[in-house]
Amino acid sequence: MPVNLPPLDPAQLHPVAGVRWGVTEAGVRKANRKDLSVMLLDEGASVAGVFTRNRYCAAPVQVCREHLQSHSGVRALVINTGNANAGTGASGLAHARQTCAALADLLQCASGQILPFSTGVIMEPLPVDRIVAGLPAALADAHADNWARAAEGIMTTDTVPKAASMQVEIEGQRVNITGISKGAGMIRPNMATMLGFVATDAAIDPDLLPALARELADGSFNRITIDGDTSTNDSFVLVATHQAGHAPIRDWAEPRAQTLKAALMQVARTLAHAIVRDGEGATKFITIAVEGGRHADECRQVAYAIAHSPLVKTAMYASDPNLGRILAAVGYAGIEDLDQTLIELHLDDVHVVTGGGRHPHYREEDGQRVMKQSEITVRVHLGRGQACDTVWTCDLSHDYVTINADYRS
Amino acid sequence: MPVNLPPLDPAQLHPVAGVRWGVTEAGVRKANRKDLSVMLLDEGASVAGVFTRNRYCAAPVQVCREHLQSHSGVRALVINTGNANAGTGASGLAHARQTCAALADLLQCASGQILPFSTGVIMEPLPVDRIVAGLPAALADAHADNWARAAEGIMTTDTVPKAASMQVEIEGQRVNITGISKGAGMIRPNMATMLGFVATDAAIDPDLLPALARELADGSFNRITIDGDTSTNDSFVLVATHQAGHAPIRDWAEPRAQTLKAALMQVARTLAHAIVRDGEGATKFITIAVEGGRHADECRQVAYAIAHSPLVKTAMYASDPNLGRILAAVGYAGIEDLDQTLIELHLDDVHVVTGGGRHPHYREEDGQRVMKQSEITVRVHLGRGQACDTVWTCDLSHDYVTINADYRS
Repeated sequence: MPVNLPPLDPAQLHPVAGVRWGVTEAGVRKANRKDLSVMLLDEGASVAGVFTRNRYCAAPVQVCREHLQSHSGVRALVINTGNANAGTGASGLAHARQTCAALADLLQCASGQILPFSTGVIMEPLPVDRIVAGLPAALADAHADNWARAAEGIMTTDTVPKAASMQVEIEGQRVNITGISKGAGMIRPNMATMLGFVATDAAIDPDLLPALARELADGSFNRITIDGDTSTNDSFVLVATHQAGHAPIRDWAEPRAQTLKAALMQVARTLAHAIVRDGEGATKFITIAVEGGRHADECRQVAYAIAHSPLVKTAMYASDPNLGRILAAVGYAGIEDLDQTLIELHLDDVHVVTGGGRHPHYREEDGQRVMKQSEITVRVHLGRGQACDTVWTCDLSHDYVTINADYRS
Repeated sequence: MPVNLPPLDPAQLHPVAGVRWGVTEAGVRKANRKDLSVMLLDEGASVAGVFTRNRYCAAPVQVCREHLQSHSGVRALVINTGNANAGTGASGLAHARQTCAALADLLQCASGQILPFSTGVIMEPLPVDRIVAGLPAALADAHADNWARAAEGIMTTDTVPKAASMQVEIEGQRVNITGISKGAGMIRPNMATMLGFVATDAAIDPDLLPALARELADGSFNRITIDGDTSTNDSFVLVATHQAGHAPIRDWAEPRAQTLKAALMQVARTLAHAIVRDGEGATKFITIAVEGGRHADECRQVAYAIAHSPLVKTAMYASDPNLGRILAAVGYAGIEDLDQTLIELHLDDVHVVTGGGRHPHYREEDGQRVMKQSEITVRVHLGRGQACDTVWTCDLSHDYVTINADYRS
């Protein structure tokens, strides 16, 4: 039951010139599930990726990094669900390479032009034969209008497919931006999430793409958390096919470039928020804004301490304004010289704490009113400086325990 | 339903010469609950404390620190449950001082000779009048045999009272060590826990006591976690009354001193483990031993990452050997140059992972067998060095969510 996430309308997902998706049922883990997807790119497309910083990163993440470094021109992405191909040692790496080689054969390109992605259970051998056997069907399904099918094809414990799409105009040309994402548990992305794919037909200097991908990830997927568990497979990929017909963007300072970047960020952020809204067991979408820090890093550190506190998350679930738990999390976030007498706390418009203690006009029923909402903003002011940062998360419910206690059974 | 924690037998708690406890019902938050305790010390006792590093530390913690620094000779501790007196600003500090002053009046000592402790809900005004009114009844109850009553008197969400006791012989004199602890949620002590009191009638050079208290806390309370939430009120207090009749201990290298320290550590560790065994919703007691690190700090960092992972904790609850989740936690623990191909993982005697991947002889039914136990040891070898460290935790169950969603209602 995702939090305020309207059903996906395939008609609102704009095709991106130069991008086609094909999806099939390969039986990776369970029968009758769309579990194998390919994203086919026209020649000339540029691709940049941002991957998990988990040192136990999955085999496909390692292969993606290699293939992107070779700059050989990516022609396809292949994504399976049902198995993460992580914690699988040398055979896992061999399986990821074997998948790339099989798809390269079919597309008559080099193996290094394929990027592999896997998501699902960790430490199980990848059923590479079933994946390879499914590739022709996935290719036969390829179509520019398949974004909604692909959003479904990459789901694991997600309850709904997640996609976002926008159009902007540059030099009279219509530019399309469309993306999909998945992920509902093991979510505290560190440099990217598991998984996000955004494509645009805008023309962008390929040299600008890696930094742009990182900037988009930092403003979206790297600001969300569900359970604090950074996945082994987090990957965010940005594709630019350059087919929209305008002159390539070479400088972000240009107004048209700013328009494009803002639209890309909005798509990335919508996709990241969708992951939180569909977080395992989530019943609330919570924005944690920390202000008044010396630098953004310490604001983010405090925001994550609040976002990861099981006590704060269960209070949110219960709509219980037991707000001292937020103060405790602020206190243990790791700022050694924090002065508790300067802390201010707002819950939406309700001023809860001033000068470190309960605000004299704070009434429990006001806190209760906000806690009952499905969207809540926690705003903490540290009283130390001018920096701020924001993190998005969800609550911790019985369903989180149920889902994760039963995931494999 | 604590994990393998036998019921408290008051007869097994040895009185400590020079220590008396009195307990009463002061109605701090709810009626008919033992919620106010005093620990009375004979003149000459030495006291050392270790307190939370939460920067939002409670008012009584601040007052304890002041009073211990004044070296005026502690004569009594006063502990209330039902209210943490944290996040209460200047009035909270005034209330803590007022409690000390009232007890000092009754005992005809100085206010600086009293240490105050509070535990319960954060950010509610302390009902200081009810506490002060309850002090005479607590004093009237004072008795050397009251350790079990005191263990009950300091409980909050604990389901059972927690105590431990030992006797050792030094120079033919019997030395008593007895302690009590409480805590079931908001438990990831940082320098101490919420709350632990250990007393001995051993004669120990008072100058050695602060370092000893820290060493005991580091080997016990600072190695446990339930939900990663470091409390605002964590306090561990060590009392030595010096009445056992042997010559004072001045050097830990002496054999008799080592005997005493080992016994003190065993009592502290039993009390710390009892907190985990009675952790909110706990159904399993989990030991996480990380070996092969470059230094103990990184071993502890990895152990805490595993211990705090909601995915690992829910898998433990479900007895599901979804052990890739442990690898993921090892990977995101923050060791930047970790080599995943060197990782070894054992679950009790079962070798699960070798060389970073699934052990060829590992069978799911063996993992399943261990996961079904109520006591599980997770042993990770990092393959980087000779250091090791251990952390104790529990699983994450439906009852954790229920308890914390309903705590105040």
